[in-house]
Amino acid sequence: MNEPIIKAKKSVALSGVVAGNTAISSVGRSGNDLHYRGYDIKDLAHNCEFEEIAHLLIHGKLPNIKELAAYKSHLKSLRGLNSSMKLILEQLPKHTHPMDVLRTGVSILGSTIHEDQVNNSTLTQKIADKILASISSILIYWYHFSHNNKRIEVETDDDSVGGHFLHLLHGNPPPQQWVKAMHISLILYAEHEFNASTFTSRVIAGTGSDIFSCICGGIGALKGFKHGGANEVAYEILQRYDSTAAATLDITKRLNNKEVIIGFGHPVYTICDPRNAIIKEVAQHLSQLANNMQLFDIAAAIEATMWDSKKMFPNLDWFSAVSYHLMGVPTNMFTPLFVLARVSGWSAHIMEQRADGKIIRPTANYTGPDNLDFIALKDR
Amino acid sequence: MNEPIIKAKKSVALSGVVAGNTAISSVGRSGNDLHYRGYDIKDLAHNCEFEEIAHLLIHGKLPNIKELAAYKSHLKSLRGLNSSMKLILEQLPKHTHPMDVLRTGVSILGSTIHEDQVNNSTLTQKIADKILASISSILIYWYHFSHNNKRIEVETDDDSVGGHFLHLLHGNPPPQQWVKAMHISLILYAEHEFNASTFTSRVIAGTGSDIFSCICGGIGALKGFKHGGANEVAYEILQRYDSTAAATLDITKRLNNKEVIIGFGHPVYTICDPRNAIIKEVAQHLSQLANNMQLFDIAAAIEATMWDSKKMFPNLDWFSAVSYHLMGVPTNMFTPLFVLARVSGWSAHIMEQRADGKIIRPTANYTGPDNLDFIALKDR
Repeated sequence: MNEPIIKAKKSVALSGVVAGNTAISSVGRSGNDLHYRGYDIKDLAHNCEFEEIAHLLIHGKLPNIKELAAYKSHLKSLRGLNSSMKLILEQLPKHTHPMDVLRTGVSILGSTIHEDQVNNSTLTQKIADKILASISSILIYWYHFSHNNKRIEVETDDDSVGGHFLHLLHGNPPPQQWVKAMHISLILYAEHEFNASTFTSRVIAGTGSDIFSCICGGIGALKGFKHGGANEVAYEILQRYDSTAAATLDITKRLNNKEVIIGFGHPVYTICDPRNAIIKEVAQHLSQLANNMQLFDIAAAIEATMWDSKKMFPNLDWFSAVSYHLMGVPTNMFTPLFVLARVSGWSAHIMEQRADGKIIRPTANYTGPDNLDFIALKDR
Repeated sequence: MNEPIIKAKKSVALSGVVAGNTAISSVGRSGNDLHYRGYDIKDLAHNCEFEEIAHLLIHGKLPNIKELAAYKSHLKSLRGLNSSMKLILEQLPKHTHPMDVLRTGVSILGSTIHEDQVNNSTLTQKIADKILASISSILIYWYHFSHNNKRIEVETDDDSVGGHFLHLLHGNPPPQQWVKAMHISLILYAEHEFNASTFTSRVIAGTGSDIFSCICGGIGALKGFKHGGANEVAYEILQRYDSTAAATLDITKRLNNKEVIIGFGHPVYTICDPRNAIIKEVAQHLSQLANNMQLFDIAAAIEATMWDSKKMFPNLDWFSAVSYHLMGVPTNMFTPLFVLARVSGWSAHIMEQRADGKIIRPTANYTGPDNLDFIALKDR
């Protein structure tokens, strides 16, 4: 395999700088590939359920039929919330950002389950599974209480993590095509090497801190519009237009004004984002199912404009926005779905950073004043 | 000034690697110096109140008499907690780690105060002040409720942040010497360049996320025993001994067994930690005041042993542990005091990272398997 030429990007600090070793994923080594523990993302996304990938990341291997059934049943058993958690969630106002609800919810989980030994992988895996299984319960319990004044039952019998999310959100078991779309989408979002949120989790893990602290940090970093928050911004862009012609015209104008269009380009991939073709197909199927191609067509028209004008390609966020909207997910829950997926990748990296044993502590280039004379309070 | 030779340390990832610019502090440029915005830590620690330093870090300058009075009065007005916050804190069990209480408390603050625009420094400074002023209220309201079943009044009339903490903890206004000790200690802990928790805050800020997310991440990183948690571990070591002789003997034995003694050495300083002499004097004064030199003497004996055997010097955590213990602070609130101080440094770095406009995204050295063949579920 050819090693890519790493071009340091000006808008990215530490671009191309190696901050550690990982055996969890490799990104963009040929400019447009992604592998999880050596497996091509295309094979995984087309053939697996998300729970297989969560098992691959958190527990180290693709499960066989029996292991997968046991894992899914285990995750199912972890969907419940205790009464304290519910009471706390009921205190969070309606206008709280769902990402803040998740950050708070995971932080509170850490006060009931203790990770006393950070080098006990079995315990860490147990906690990772609990977070993965209950994060939809946390978010959507809060959502229905704060928005509809309804205390929902969070322990459903859905077969999958993604199905559980949609069932809680809509109050009904989701159609099988939506469950399949969620599997693919969550697989694509599950892991991505030393991106900013994963790197955050690793910096926290490096000090010897607990997994809840690491994942709270990851959620906080993912919230930013330059990272996970981009899928929400992508939808904000898409919903501005009611036709492909209007979209093409306006995007061209914005590009001429040097505006950055969120959802395009990537700090690591140079040729294309290998996840785009896969999620685009998902968005297309969901649009056909809904018998409404408008949003998809607008997204595809902007994709063409961006390529023609700037040779920029969409990243995973672009058609994820279309897909989530078509499944009735409120826009500010797009990034929480990214969390639901990425908890698996973060957990794997937290354990790997601990095994590595290093604290992450770079240095800074000092640009401030030198040796100022101290002036006493009364003389200032 | 001579530029120090940067020796990359094997136990530190990104050791000596520049991850960005800062004008907030410089550390160890001559091997044993520390400056906040160009001012020598010795001048600041000996002559200032902590609120002057918080103002220097969060608001960019040392305040004059009038500005300091206004700032202190403003911080005083921000000590209160709303009823939702109290109700939530009452749900957190007694065995919750105080650092987890702070992480949760700051996360919840973020659901009531919104930082809609991350490039509005005035708003960010306002939030930083609110966190700084109310973090003791959060921690100690929870503490007295969970441990003593008591709902305390958190809005005291104490003149300082440190006095407020001690007053809430003990239920009485603290002696002036303790208030002074807190000023010095908090000044020493306020800021330290790109240490792991500050770096965490900056990685989160780099994605465009909000200040609550950044500070939650910082708290999580600080909790680790290789970082802020070290002052708690330092006390655990100290309390093992009932005489200087026993301490010297046992530490020598442990060193012979290659055990790492927490509280000694530093990833950046090469000659000594300039904060040690200052906090050691504080610990000595507090011991004299208590008419009990035992803990101080044991700490000093271990300091001598570590130097004689290993040429290792104590860092700030070592005599901080002695000082906090002498002021009746429970051991697991040592790191929360570090948070109380460091909120000021983190906030300054968060604003600086935003102004810089960069996302922080290093890369990894891939060490896993290459191009594994995908095996279908039924064939595994």
